[in-house]
Amino acid sequence: MQKSKVARILGEIRTQSPLVHNITNYVVMNSTANALLAVGASPIMAHAIEEMEDMVAISSVLVINIGTLSKNWIDAMVVAGKLAKAKGIPVVFDPVGAGASKFRTDTCMRIIRECSPDIIRGNASEIMALVDSSVQTKGVDSNNSSNDAIENATLLSKALNNTVVISGQTDYIISGDNLYEIHNGNEMMSHVTGMGCTATAIVGAFAAVEKDYFLASIAAMAVMGVAGELTANVAVGPGSFQMNFLDRLYSISKEDIMKNIRFNPHG
Amino acid sequence: MQKSKVARILGEIRTQSPLVHNITNYVVMNSTANALLAVGASPIMAHAIEEMEDMVAISSVLVINIGTLSKNWIDAMVVAGKLAKAKGIPVVFDPVGAGASKFRTDTCMRIIRECSPDIIRGNASEIMALVDSSVQTKGVDSNNSSNDAIENATLLSKALNNTVVISGQTDYIISGDNLYEIHNGNEMMSHVTGMGCTATAIVGAFAAVEKDYFLASIAAMAVMGVAGELTANVAVGPGSFQMNFLDRLYSISKEDIMKNIRFNPHG
Amino acid sequence: MQKSKVARILGEIRTQSPLVHNITNYVVMNSTANALLAVGASPIMAHAIEEMEDMVAISSVLVINIGTLSKNWIDAMVVAGKLAKAKGIPVVFDPVGAGASKFRTDTCMRIIRECSPDIIRGNASEIMALVDSSVQTKGVDSNNSSNDAIENATLLSKALNNTVVISGQTDYIISGDNLYEIHNGNEMMSHVTGMGCTATAIVGAFAAVEKDYFLASIAAMAVMGVAGELTANVAVGPGSFQMNFLDRLYSISKEDIMKNIRFNPHG
Repeated sequence: MQKSKVARILGEIRTQSPLVHNITNYVVMNSTANALLAVGASPIMAHAIEEMEDMVAISSVLVINIGTLSKNWIDAMVVAGKLAKAKGIPVVFDPVGAGASKFRTDTCMRIIRECSPDIIRGNASEIMALVDSSVQTKGVDSNNSSNDAIENATLLSKALNNTVVISGQTDYIISGDNLYEIHNGNEMMSHVTGMGCTATAIVGAFAAVEKDYFLASIAAMAVMGVAGELTANVAVGPGSFQMNFLDRLYSISKEDIMKNIRFNPHG
Repeated sequence: MQKSKVARILGEIRTQSPLVHNITNYVVMNSTANALLAVGASPIMAHAIEEMEDMVAISSVLVINIGTLSKNWIDAMVVAGKLAKAKGIPVVFDPVGAGASKFRTDTCMRIIRECSPDIIRGNASEIMALVDSSVQTKGVDSNNSSNDAIENATLLSKALNNTVVISGQTDYIISGDNLYEIHNGNEMMSHVTGMGCTATAIVGAFAAVEKDYFLASIAAMAVMGVAGELTANVAVGPGSFQMNFLDRLYSISKEDIMKNIRFNPHG
Repeated sequence: MQKSKVARILGEIRTQSPLVHNITNYVVMNSTANALLAVGASPIMAHAIEEMEDMVAISSVLVINIGTLSKNWIDAMVVAGKLAKAKGIPVVFDPVGAGASKFRTDTCMRIIRECSPDIIRGNASEIMALVDSSVQTKGVDSNNSSNDAIENATLLSKALNNTVVISGQTDYIISGDNLYEIHNGNEMMSHVTGMGCTATAIVGAFAAVEKDYFLASIAAMAVMGVAGELTANVAVGPGSFQMNFLDRLYSISKEDIMKNIRFNPHG
């Protein structure tokens, strides 16, 4: 993949300002809406089952995130997912905390089964929990990156015929036997809540304008990583990181991307 | 309206610290609570139907915002609205996403019918959706300002005998045949989530201390606009804008207002 | 209590990164998750009754906060509280708005009765409302600190055999006849939403690693106060305060603590 393609897809978001429909968690609603606005997309946060049909009808992508899951949200997620698939817009899924509770793992399985997400993004233990229910996640921020995770993600991607993103110190983007690594990002991102959820939402914005979801996911994660790195140069802690990250997503240029991206096919 | 009157009403908020009861959306609960504190008011966020009577009893204004609407919140909104009217405190309504779904438009109509809001604030397409249900809103951030919107808002204001605020590049405050324009504000405000919801909450704070709701709305929107403009001088992106805006709302002085307000009756 | 003990407990949080399970309110979910990450803990926000057993099983402390209470959350709070007690992990309770509505006061009483919180933190009027139901809270930010509050908190602490924290200009930490005062903090903290809720969450993180909950509470409130004071030196308003406070919680050192703490047994 060429670096210039990443910049081109970002440019498409800024030109088209695609509507990104999020059914997401309370913790990150504000921060992911702001990240989507900063990158050039138009966020909608809406979860009432009564309006899923209307919302999907005007949206370019659906992002489902189970961070602060409760029972009465699940049906709306599934309904929206099915409608999005029927309309042919991408469904992006963030299995927050998969493996931390049976309720979450079961819900993930239902969403995967009924909505066939085009892209799934999680940390290593969440992705592994989707394949091997014996894996236990410690909380929602845990990281467990390893060849095991890649192996499981590849199984998952092949079974679902979709793209799986494992985020961590190195990000892995997997589509069947295709595997891309991204070496951007900064450790400070793990001290700000919802950076993973933000990554998922940004992946949604990229998938809204780029039909090759493997490329869209690589590009989105690369922009997240480069923005994170450049932010770390000016932030002195997690508070200033969160603020400056939004400024950077807003201002990140083709030159920033061309100069800073470090990614490659695996191997 | 004299500029000094705007400063006087702001001073009243800072002196009285009125309790502003918000039934609002998940995305902006934190940011609007902070904006209300910054301007000198006391926010309460409470939505349980079981406590609406007690909450309205201690509050000076009720702000209803349907941003992340779900069915089980609607009854509480209506009950609170009726109680507020019965007590004689102002009801301010933000019809977020009106026109984007039938569920939202219908809910807006019910709230308007049963609660008779004293002030309604929305963007042009939301306000138009309240009058002409054939208007479709693209998302929740859309802008469509035009003579059409003013015309519809005037119809609405006359029908409801209230004040209608259309916010956008130019803000229009409408009460029957009275129309005021505000030319403050900055484009960066459209890249921060919930600035419209913040405007509605701030309108609530002003209406809590100024019984002429047309004046209160003009003053509130002018302070929002001036604060936004002064913030834009120091912000480098939407992250720093959001942070500095709170600092500015907190520190904005009579001199800032007198020097920077640009408003006038329409025509 | 020695100042160095405060720094030692903080060091334990940073080393152990305890999982802090929060059932809390919409307004502060983002800001308290960020505060917990900044101080070195691992936050989980989860409220579905279906997963309370699994969540308590992996957590080191439970924090219950009724800020944006609704009926369907109460059972989950009680179930989680009972499970936490059964497991022997601390239960920390924030009775937000106790006294402002019968619904809140009644819910507080149920949580106290069924979950026996190990630590309760509130402002003076909230704590008084737990003892004397004739006390009325003005909103959720009110302060009423007085000997009355200390007296009531002492009654409460003795009845429940737990620790009660009254936060305000001076913080009081009470365990039976033991009373500690903390004279740190800054007035700007009252202009940022959720600083009290943040204090409760931070108390949770300290209680997760220090079994003497009286000590844990003193240490947590002292770190909050010192961080607030140091933040006030660089903040120019509530927006920059909120941001810099997270940076400071992240970076606060043993030296910062040793040099700035001002606390003492009462008398």
